[in-house]
Amino acid sequence: MQIGFVGLGRMGANMVERLLRGGHEVIVYNRSPERTHLVMQKGALGAFSLAELATRLATPRVVWLMVPAGEATETSLRELAAVLAKGDLVVDGGNSNFEDSRRRAGTLDDQGIAFVDAGTSGGIWGLENGYCLMVGGRDEAVQRLAPALTTLAPPDGWLHCGPAGSGHYAKMIHNGIEYGLMQAYAEGFELLRAGPFAFDVSRLAGLWNRGSVIRSWLLELAERALARDPNLSSIEGYVADSGEGRWTIEQALRTAVPTPVLAQAVFARFASRQSESFAAKLLSALRQEFGGHPVRTTPVSRKDS
Amino acid sequence: MQIGFVGLGRMGANMVERLLRGGHEVIVYNRSPERTHLVMQKGALGAFSLAELATRLATPRVVWLMVPAGEATETSLRELAAVLAKGDLVVDGGNSNFEDSRRRAGTLDDQGIAFVDAGTSGGIWGLENGYCLMVGGRDEAVQRLAPALTTLAPPDGWLHCGPAGSGHYAKMIHNGIEYGLMQAYAEGFELLRAGPFAFDVSRLAGLWNRGSVIRSWLLELAERALARDPNLSSIEGYVADSGEGRWTIEQALRTAVPTPVLAQAVFARFASRQSESFAAKLLSALRQEFGGHPVRTTPVSRKDS
Repeated sequence: MQIGFVGLGRMGANMVERLLRGGHEVIVYNRSPERTHLVMQKGALGAFSLAELATRLATPRVVWLMVPAGEATETSLRELAAVLAKGDLVVDGGNSNFEDSRRRAGTLDDQGIAFVDAGTSGGIWGLENGYCLMVGGRDEAVQRLAPALTTLAPPDGWLHCGPAGSGHYAKMIHNGIEYGLMQAYAEGFELLRAGPFAFDVSRLAGLWNRGSVIRSWLLELAERALARDPNLSSIEGYVADSGEGRWTIEQALRTAVPTPVLAQAVFARFASRQSESFAAKLLSALRQEFGGHPVRTTPVSRKDS
Repeated sequence: MQIGFVGLGRMGANMVERLLRGGHEVIVYNRSPERTHLVMQKGALGAFSLAELATRLATPRVVWLMVPAGEATETSLRELAAVLAKGDLVVDGGNSNFEDSRRRAGTLDDQGIAFVDAGTSGGIWGLENGYCLMVGGRDEAVQRLAPALTTLAPPDGWLHCGPAGSGHYAKMIHNGIEYGLMQAYAEGFELLRAGPFAFDVSRLAGLWNRGSVIRSWLLELAERALARDPNLSSIEGYVADSGEGRWTIEQALRTAVPTPVLAQAVFARFASRQSESFAAKLLSALRQEFGGHPVRTTPVSRKDS
């Protein structure tokens, strides 16, 4: 099928390449034209404004948006809607908040433009392995998009989850779970190093991937990373997050669902970014305040030394 | 090779069957003879006392012990040691505490009996897929056992982790991680049901297993369980534990390693077993005590209603 593609970051550029390999005609636009030229070398047609993109696409148009969640997606969707027409279809393949997607679906619906949210998992491995796609939207819109979804995904790798917003909801929970899984492995590997044995942690990760209960793709990635650098000495223990983990906890709070592990996984990332914790300072101060002599003999915390 | 096998529970019986399929000669003993007769039908030779088992094994003997951790393993090892001789080898394939295994290795060593601890993962799937084996002990003992290990494990599925105790240490951490992974999935699936969308949770689990970052064997098991019964209405939310998760947290406490996710996963299991929580009752009582009128208008907790 013919498809417009907006946003040619690492993720977007790879998805375009996979679409091209699948025989689709892809017309691409990116805010900075360098990326557009790069992706044109892979076989995509280029547009250098959203208006040009709209002109070059046959109607009814299909445009896949792959830009950062939040302000960038909001702006892109608004600008895109201005050059699209009734009957066109827009896909948000980014990590948008599902409430935003529900709202945007309503706004576009008022203009007669169909909206599909496609939560996309697979990272830099998706180009070769395919992207796992969680898709929300009306039946007719999802059906129109099906040829592109089938190309982007591995076999049976996309699912129409429900109405608009359900794709991004599923992706949010996916990422929340991902945080929890990663933190569980991370804590386990730290404990391996804390015991009385000198484990070859990469080989042990490799072993666990062969028939153990905890085998997984994330554990395969851990095996690779630990094989390259068993002490991870080249990597700083500073862990970023891109929103979906927080939204998962916000959803837990909204619906009063106890999610201690998912919440701790998010908080562990926050803690990893603190060079010094005010809470730890206060704990240390309080121990001194109430403890009198016995407590004064305990060493001050690592952070204060 | 020839190997004695003590303990013919579901796990032990399957392991014997896999050994027999691999061409080994297995002489089995179980406390209750019914299981011995059952496993003899698979081709094992039977013994009806540990003394008989010792008599029927060629020296130097190799005996694999597969009984519940704790008192059963302690007793079996003591009784076994009494009928074995210098040069023999005992394997503890159960989920023993690694400190027990270190101590037992020392005790047996004094009698000239070699000890190997083999943390075993794979559950009821191990018969067909092979058991992932984390092995601790002296080089010569592990080498003597290698033919059996190779048969029991999938390809590259066993690893000599280090000295005695290291196999059970690795298995302990494996299970601690397992608790964390399971709890992360569990919380995520509960949140899927708490949102505004009516997900087909089994199909979504299936989708996530096709190319997503969180694909894993545990998620495949979740897919199966949810396909049979999407609401899990036939299953009570009461989660047992068999020790390794607690030991993982004890090890974290001993070595002061922060493991918030692994600890919460263990505590969530404890909470699942309480029909009523005294802590929740006290929280409720305190809210009434300090809150005065405004608090009295809040509904009493679910448990007290």
